[in-house]
Amino acid sequence: MKKPLILVTNDDGVSAPGIRALIEVVSTFGEVVVVAPDSPQSAMGHAITISQPLRLHSTNIYGDIEAYECSGTPVDCVKLAKNILFKGRTPDLCVSGINHGSNASINIIYSGTLSAAMEASLEGIPSIGFSLLDYSYQADFEPSKPWLSQLVGYVLEQGMPKGKLLNVNIPNLPRHALKGMKVCRQGEARWVEEFTEARDPRGQKYYWLTGRFVSDDEGEDTDIYALKNGYISVVPSMHDLTHHPAIPVLKEIETLSIPQE
Amino acid sequence: MKKPLILVTNDDGVSAPGIRALIEVVSTFGEVVVVAPDSPQSAMGHAITISQPLRLHSTNIYGDIEAYECSGTPVDCVKLAKNILFKGRTPDLCVSGINHGSNASINIIYSGTLSAAMEASLEGIPSIGFSLLDYSYQADFEPSKPWLSQLVGYVLEQGMPKGKLLNVNIPNLPRHALKGMKVCRQGEARWVEEFTEARDPRGQKYYWLTGRFVSDDEGEDTDIYALKNGYISVVPSMHDLTHHPAIPVLKEIETLSIPQE
Repeated sequence: MKKPLILVTNDDGVSAPGIRALIEVVSTFGEVVVVAPDSPQSAMGHAITISQPLRLHSTNIYGDIEAYECSGTPVDCVKLAKNILFKGRTPDLCVSGINHGSNASINIIYSGTLSAAMEASLEGIPSIGFSLLDYSYQADFEPSKPWLSQLVGYVLEQGMPKGKLLNVNIPNLPRHALKGMKVCRQGEARWVEEFTEARDPRGQKYYWLTGRFVSDDEGEDTDIYALKNGYISVVPSMHDLTHHPAIPVLKEIETLSIPQE
Repeated sequence: MKKPLILVTNDDGVSAPGIRALIEVVSTFGEVVVVAPDSPQSAMGHAITISQPLRLHSTNIYGDIEAYECSGTPVDCVKLAKNILFKGRTPDLCVSGINHGSNASINIIYSGTLSAAMEASLEGIPSIGFSLLDYSYQADFEPSKPWLSQLVGYVLEQGMPKGKLLNVNIPNLPRHALKGMKVCRQGEARWVEEFTEARDPRGQKYYWLTGRFVSDDEGEDTDIYALKNGYISVVPSMHDLTHHPAIPVLKEIETLSIPQE
């Protein structure tokens, strides 16, 4: 069998400890190509760069593994990999992360890590976004590695429907406390924002975003619940944002009319 | 009855013709506050600014209408409006746009315009994102205004469920050719990317993103179909990205285990 081709990306930047851990996991499965931002791109959502040129440079920070750093967003990295580096070839898998910090629940919509995985899924590439619930640079990715290995093997074998991806979050626990994996829905939650208000050295006012994650979703089938209970959460996700049940309800909009000229 | 409070934002920047047209439509309904980026923020997706301070300045470009320009992304604008400007008050409606260019189909995931509307919807504010299928600065927003007025009136009266928003796209047609509004699902499509490759004045290679919109979704219930047939498309949208039907299928992931230490 031909070795699978695996694209690795992230949003914390090409040199972040999280992407190194992910490269270690997937490099046992096939040929790995790393294309990641040259600087941190957290909270970039599905941003793409259209009004500026993009740069792509190879780097040897991962030794024998082919790696590139890109001046754009995580989604740009996937687009450049697909179009410039791989040309006719389609990767068998795209993995993004391991993000330093949670992308569970509503965080998926703000996440560069998951947007990169979604972009790959739109290209028909089975994709997984990984995140560890620890924001620190010293986060310990070791305990999760055997689980990630299992999941990567499963997806390489089973594939994934086009346009779908997995949003995987890992509780920050030692190996013995990690209970396994749970397949869940995205828990309902939101950020209650607060802004720090201050003045710069020139006396000009500025605001700095901060916030608190709040959920009142009591469901036991959510990623929030799985993570709280020591499980790695696996949420099958997609790019169709249609709220289908609302379509029949809103049909009356079609009866609205305007005065004739 | 108290006049409704309406937040207006966009991603093309506070001085774009599209937001001016939208302000004209909604200012007949209530008290309008404009908070928009101080520079174009197209294709920013749901990006937020976390590693830099944000600036917010009032501007008088809309005369008597309270207006602010913000140094951040469209989502930042909504967060700042909610937390700094409105404090305890919750707007009755948030409208975003009118975007210069389509946000139908898959474009919703890249769109700053729609991400701003989604952010407001997460705060429980009924929200609508508007886009006209004309990228040019000289785009003609006049023909759509009576329709937008109808829709805004409808939403102010009926409200919208929390976390839901409307993605409204307008075909680039003269008034007599606009047939009405259709409530649709998000059509399946993708961008086939191409990159322009060139060298800068110092001889360094760069890439510039370009692309072609491709859909093979033949459904007559999509926004793509409605727009092609002269209708304004209205897609009820949401922030839950869970692919619910995949949950039972993927349950076997929960049976994967790792070697004991």
